[in-house]
Amino acid sequence: MDKNGILIILSGPSGSGKDTVLNELIKDRDDVRVSVSMTTRQKRDDEIDGIHYYFVDREYFEKKIADNKMLEFAEYAKNYYGTPKEPVDEMLSNGKAVILKIEVQGAEKIRMLYPDVISIFLMPPSMRVLEERLRSRNTEDEETINHRLVIAREEMKKAPDYDFVVVNDTIESAVEGIKTIISSERLKVKRNKKFISEVINNV
Amino acid sequence: MDKNGILIILSGPSGSGKDTVLNELIKDRDDVRVSVSMTTRQKRDDEIDGIHYYFVDREYFEKKIADNKMLEFAEYAKNYYGTPKEPVDEMLSNGKAVILKIEVQGAEKIRMLYPDVISIFLMPPSMRVLEERLRSRNTEDEETINHRLVIAREEMKKAPDYDFVVVNDTIESAVEGIKTIISSERLKVKRNKKFISEVINNV
Repeated sequence: MDKNGILIILSGPSGSGKDTVLNELIKDRDDVRVSVSMTTRQKRDDEIDGIHYYFVDREYFEKKIADNKMLEFAEYAKNYYGTPKEPVDEMLSNGKAVILKIEVQGAEKIRMLYPDVISIFLMPPSMRVLEERLRSRNTEDEETINHRLVIAREEMKKAPDYDFVVVNDTIESAVEGIKTIISSERLKVKRNKKFISEVINNV
Repeated sequence: MDKNGILIILSGPSGSGKDTVLNELIKDRDDVRVSVSMTTRQKRDDEIDGIHYYFVDREYFEKKIADNKMLEFAEYAKNYYGTPKEPVDEMLSNGKAVILKIEVQGAEKIRMLYPDVISIFLMPPSMRVLEERLRSRNTEDEETINHRLVIAREEMKKAPDYDFVVVNDTIESAVEGIKTIISSERLKVKRNKKFISEVINNV
């Protein structure tokens, strides 16, 4: 089998469980990596540099942009957020499936730049369940939760632009869904042309 | 999830193990069916009508062609072989993944008529293994085996026209590969538009 990696976008509204699902996924799949984003925002106490984000200053981030070393980036609330290109390229050349956890606007940009990217939308099983999950965090007031629900519904309207939809009904079934998509992608003929030609030519 | 079936082509050279793999596959996947071909050739003693083929006469087959009720057909050695449309359509409307076991020319026809079809090429792990498998049948002379190997190599040159390649290294891994492709296809956004819209609209 060829050693080509697979670039994958994972999007989903706040509360859809992206982090939990990805944490479980990488535990038992050594061929899967999650890309770490870079940001200029302040590190929170419970965050670890290189795990949750690469925390850098504005000057460093802007140099990366100028050198065309960001896969995509955006500015929110006066802070930069983005995906550095080099670690992604290295993991891809090592045959890894590299997952970019990215919101819907970033996904559109990546899709235009990399038509071969596989995009997955993680859906809650229902709006009611999404609301319950947001409330169970117990960290946000009513107004914030309602705002998140409005945003979530808008983001979900973008789901039809994705290749796959995985329902986060249980963590196990969502993890299984993403694994299945990756395993199936590895069987694509376009990823196995070298192998096919070796069999035909008796190598 | 929507109740749309999936039309699947499975091709592979003689000796690649298509029948064995399909027999195992349908044992534990109730959502998968294998289409039975129709032929005008004589039934062999070990064959069962409706299982191995639908055995019919020329007049019946030609009426089916005239009524546009064959998905595809071809004539070999003065006998017709083809895929009747109605059973396939019925299984698809019941949400089944319907596998057509078909040779490379038939696959090309189906692909033109049904651009949405998923095509899978079943490859032997090597020409040496294919040769061993053909010899182990102990039913064919040297000349026939050599002829089959020449044909097999020509057929395998068509593998790049397919969507997926599954290697029949062990039956289990080949069955697993096809299952994975079907499960992944069921997660395609285009097959789940109704579900997505129901979640967004709080149904």
